[in-house]
Amino acid sequence: MSTIPKIVILGAGYGGILTAQRLQKELNYNEADVTLVNRHDYHYFTTHLHMPAAGTDSIDRTRVPISKLIDEFKIDLVKSSVREIRLSDRKVILDDGTLSFDYLVIALGGEPESFGIPGLAEHAFKIRSINSVRLIRQHIEYQFAMYKTDESRKDRLNIVVGGAGFSGIEFVAELADRVPRLCKEYDVDRKLVHIYNVEAAPTALPGFDPELVDYAMELLAKKGVDFRLGTPIKECTKEGVVLASGETLHAATVVWTGGIRGNRIVEAAGFETARGRVKVDEYLRAPGLENVFIIGDNSLMFNEEGRPYPPTAQIAMQQGVICAKNVVAAIRGGQPRQFVFNHKGTVASLGRGQAIAVVGDKKMKGWSAAQMKKLVDLRYLFIIGGIPLVLRKGRIF
Amino acid sequence: MSTIPKIVILGAGYGGILTAQRLQKELNYNEADVTLVNRHDYHYFTTHLHMPAAGTDSIDRTRVPISKLIDEFKIDLVKSSVREIRLSDRKVILDDGTLSFDYLVIALGGEPESFGIPGLAEHAFKIRSINSVRLIRQHIEYQFAMYKTDESRKDRLNIVVGGAGFSGIEFVAELADRVPRLCKEYDVDRKLVHIYNVEAAPTALPGFDPELVDYAMELLAKKGVDFRLGTPIKECTKEGVVLASGETLHAATVVWTGGIRGNRIVEAAGFETARGRVKVDEYLRAPGLENVFIIGDNSLMFNEEGRPYPPTAQIAMQQGVICAKNVVAAIRGGQPRQFVFNHKGTVASLGRGQAIAVVGDKKMKGWSAAQMKKLVDLRYLFIIGGIPLVLRKGRIF
Repeated sequence: MSTIPKIVILGAGYGGILTAQRLQKELNYNEADVTLVNRHDYHYFTTHLHMPAAGTDSIDRTRVPISKLIDEFKIDLVKSSVREIRLSDRKVILDDGTLSFDYLVIALGGEPESFGIPGLAEHAFKIRSINSVRLIRQHIEYQFAMYKTDESRKDRLNIVVGGAGFSGIEFVAELADRVPRLCKEYDVDRKLVHIYNVEAAPTALPGFDPELVDYAMELLAKKGVDFRLGTPIKECTKEGVVLASGETLHAATVVWTGGIRGNRIVEAAGFETARGRVKVDEYLRAPGLENVFIIGDNSLMFNEEGRPYPPTAQIAMQQGVICAKNVVAAIRGGQPRQFVFNHKGTVASLGRGQAIAVVGDKKMKGWSAAQMKKLVDLRYLFIIGGIPLVLRKGRIF
Repeated sequence: MSTIPKIVILGAGYGGILTAQRLQKELNYNEADVTLVNRHDYHYFTTHLHMPAAGTDSIDRTRVPISKLIDEFKIDLVKSSVREIRLSDRKVILDDGTLSFDYLVIALGGEPESFGIPGLAEHAFKIRSINSVRLIRQHIEYQFAMYKTDESRKDRLNIVVGGAGFSGIEFVAELADRVPRLCKEYDVDRKLVHIYNVEAAPTALPGFDPELVDYAMELLAKKGVDFRLGTPIKECTKEGVVLASGETLHAATVVWTGGIRGNRIVEAAGFETARGRVKVDEYLRAPGLENVFIIGDNSLMFNEEGRPYPPTAQIAMQQGVICAKNVVAAIRGGQPRQFVFNHKGTVASLGRGQAIAVVGDKKMKGWSAAQMKKLVDLRYLFIIGGIPLVLRKGRIF
């Protein structure tokens, strides 16, 4: 029997890929067995999903085969879905088998949170995965095609986006770019198409710089986005959404971007969670467990002001790096490293050639912010795949 | 009141466009008022519809604005649908008004004929118009997208094409080209996708040269088309088709290409019809009416062996030319010209780079037949739009 410790990483999103890559780099030959488990054989760029969802960019530029990112001589890749984490047995139950671990990294990503709004789970699409955004793209286009064979159903042309956070705003911006092209392809008058963005909070992009938010709102309104801010959704039905204001928005397409929560598999494993997220220690370890690390959307950490960090790609990546160091330290009996979030800035794209950004004290908008967005994307491609990936997937010009 | 005769042409398909263009050329200034009525503001290439239906060519290359084909200073264009032809009143009732005529050219095109097979009208798509083929294309792709979010529904990946005549064969050939690309885009194993072609007659392409039919069948079978010949469809349901053989083909997409009949508006006008087609005289006139011409799919004419000519683009175009001459002759009190069909040959495309053709006594297959198909298409573009249209829409290389 092997005495080499077994490390299992669940999920190949931002956190999981970074953990796997850093372990691959830091571990010596035969120091540990590393297995990366992922539902798909590709890694996808969650922060880019709003584009293929709207149909403004391809699936191909939104993902990369995991085999291009890790060295399969050093790391085993298991394509399967996680069903259950059995902490006491040190086992993970997959759709196609079972894995035992000495060290576990839980990087499974979150789930959409619908805050108990009736009908959202059944009738609203979510921007969540490659499969889900291909469905959104095709659903919207199918509605246009169907409209042209029965023009009485004008609701087919309407799209409601629930949530005006980053995903919601970035998605409606892409939709505003996409709709004129759909109208041309399907001989539809642009005036008949309504893009609604509904948000319960009084402003879009809560927490972002108000001046930049105003800029974004004005730009998107000009592009034809119809905002309903400070307006909670009361119910989502097959016909559209009913708002708390009493208004009903008739739409054959409803996309919910209103929030994410931790993964139910993590909850079911017996951790104490808040909306599915587990409060980890400063070394990213699950409470009371020195061999289980939780990073990304399922981890809960607080900033100096005592507010939880939002689940972003940026934080997941930084956690992945520290997580890998701490797993190695645990194996070697070394000192773990504290996780300290280094906030590099925030960018929200607003469609073709437009964005808003805050980097340090600097506010940016328009073309320069859009360039910043590109740089962020290229930087990520470089981190995980070097120059070859930048050249293959990056939109440099 | 004007004493200039009013000519109304119903339909801007192959027959109607040719009639309009020739009238425009032959009539003198102020010799007649010509009005062309069409449901859309574009003319489309019916013989090309199988490509955008499968998604192997664009809508843009399948149609052309009517305003580019006729001189609107000489011919009035009315975009509306015909509701009723009132022969005794010499009036045509449109969705948006009424037109009176002295001479009427009925070039409305046919309708799908489902031979009383239950469920075909409700559940099967038809390759009939730009709107209908956009719907087919999007429906198929939507099924792939939905399959990826619920892989238990394998029927979503199956396509049944009813009818192995020209439209059916040309369409399955394009599907066979398209499916591998869809599989790549949606991460679907090609082996899971079934393209069925079901035909009641014992062979495909009845009436065509048997050697070429064999060639086509072999080629398409190799491309993955699953034939059920000599097998009538008993019923079409939401789940697929039930065959007379007892077999059920489960498919989320059923496309019926099994036959066309004359337009019901023509039937409703009081003509004696056979499957909606009116037996016209040798001058293309409706029985007993010297001022009403019927061409294209709604006209019934017999060849020397007493067999009806099939409704093809080739015959409709030739009828359009003679019809225009005979309308002018009627106005001028001249002699009408007999219609004699000049059969130039037949080509069936079999997907990318492949076709079969009979031109005179010559049989062609493979690349040379595919070039012949291109020539036929380019010739048509040249006839209706000259060199500019050939350059804009033609795929020359």
